[in-house]
Amino acid sequence: MTRVYMPDVAAGATRVEVRGDEAHHLSRVVRARVGDVVGLFDGRGREWRARVDEVTKQSVVVTLGEDVPAVVEPSVQVTLAIGVLKGDQMDSVVRDATVMGVSAIVPIATDHVTVPARAWRDDGAAARWHRVAVAAAKQCQRAVVPRMSAVVPFAEVWTAPRAALVLACVEPGALGVTPGSAWQTIARPASVLLLVGPEGGWSDPEVAQIGAHGGHAVSLGPRTLRAELVPAVAMATLWSTWGWT
Amino acid sequence: MTRVYMPDVAAGATRVEVRGDEAHHLSRVVRARVGDVVGLFDGRGREWRARVDEVTKQSVVVTLGEDVPAVVEPSVQVTLAIGVLKGDQMDSVVRDATVMGVSAIVPIATDHVTVPARAWRDDGAAARWHRVAVAAAKQCQRAVVPRMSAVVPFAEVWTAPRAALVLACVEPGALGVTPGSAWQTIARPASVLLLVGPEGGWSDPEVAQIGAHGGHAVSLGPRTLRAELVPAVAMATLWSTWGWT
Repeated sequence: MTRVYMPDVAAGATRVEVRGDEAHHLSRVVRARVGDVVGLFDGRGREWRARVDEVTKQSVVVTLGEDVPAVVEPSVQVTLAIGVLKGDQMDSVVRDATVMGVSAIVPIATDHVTVPARAWRDDGAAARWHRVAVAAAKQCQRAVVPRMSAVVPFAEVWTAPRAALVLACVEPGALGVTPGSAWQTIARPASVLLLVGPEGGWSDPEVAQIGAHGGHAVSLGPRTLRAELVPAVAMATLWSTWGWT
Repeated sequence: MTRVYMPDVAAGATRVEVRGDEAHHLSRVVRARVGDVVGLFDGRGREWRARVDEVTKQSVVVTLGEDVPAVVEPSVQVTLAIGVLKGDQMDSVVRDATVMGVSAIVPIATDHVTVPARAWRDDGAAARWHRVAVAAAKQCQRAVVPRMSAVVPFAEVWTAPRAALVLACVEPGALGVTPGSAWQTIARPASVLLLVGPEGGWSDPEVAQIGAHGGHAVSLGPRTLRAELVPAVAMATLWSTWGWT
């Protein structure tokens, strides 16, 4: 069933006007017609069956039917903070992280980020990543779209509400960490801040900051992973340790 | 350090002539000069320091020095058998699987494969995937290049030497499998055959075959993963369960 993302569904609404990209997709790509039934989700975990009532050039009006039980969300809220990678790699990270169940994504400007700031300084980058997250949520059947922030300096990750557990992925052999170390003995926390460096890894001052905030270094095996692959592998490791649902 | 793949190092050899793609890469891309030191690995787990002695248009001659301790290989031999995906997705699978430590990759023609046979019927496809595996091994510091087979019909995966454990990844909810089910209580086996379907999943006869061969269905959580992402997530789950080294 076609799934439509509609972030602003008023409480108790029965008739919803879909506009913009989603309306265009529905009317032009999917070629929805009056009477078709679609799924409509609000990106915060609610999903309905909805019937198409009206299709115009600018909008599609649907009537909400019964709630659809949404795909279950992880019991651990994971915020992924990742050093900015170049365009297609960052898209891939956002897509994989969404599919793997993160709650929020914070791209960070770290000392070893090599992508020039002009590539992400304006709002366009965050808007683009949000669209990638929406598309990924649609495809994986998730009813939640991770919160996507603009790029922030690394030091600002500590200003957000404190996660119960801070994990920082490090390269094989770095900091003397062995795979399957201390953090895996920690009972399932309510929330995790998962830190992933850019291709160049963490600088010494960043490692010191992570330590000062009680972060645990995590190794994902003896081989060197591309930064792009790290979030999916780290998330699989978390769910494998604490349960997938 | 630049790493050079050289599959045919004779026992006891001290002087090795590198030819073909690797020689071209060394002389033209890396611009190696006489006296430079490189790493040379045979794709089967051995690695040496080697000194460049001669650079010509066609070849680079090196003298092998001491053995370099290779990155430790997993204690479980995993063969990944995966339904053929389209070009760039299959490259991505081969790259990720290499980095995640598989021993062999067998692309399979299953009932729901949609890639036309002309795309993979000749030897070109397997040769290409082998090159992707070599490049991935270089980058991740691995000294083993997974054995890459040509595409075989699904039924032929059972003709290979029998793996101690057969795992088949299935979509959320399929076959009534819940994540973290029976296979995770199995002690670390010597070898695993990991079966991953194409985008369309397994056909009923294939599911029956898997069952007849004692295969366990594996679920990787409640969200629907793209087939391309499944191998990395499945491998992370295996290592997280049985240990990364």
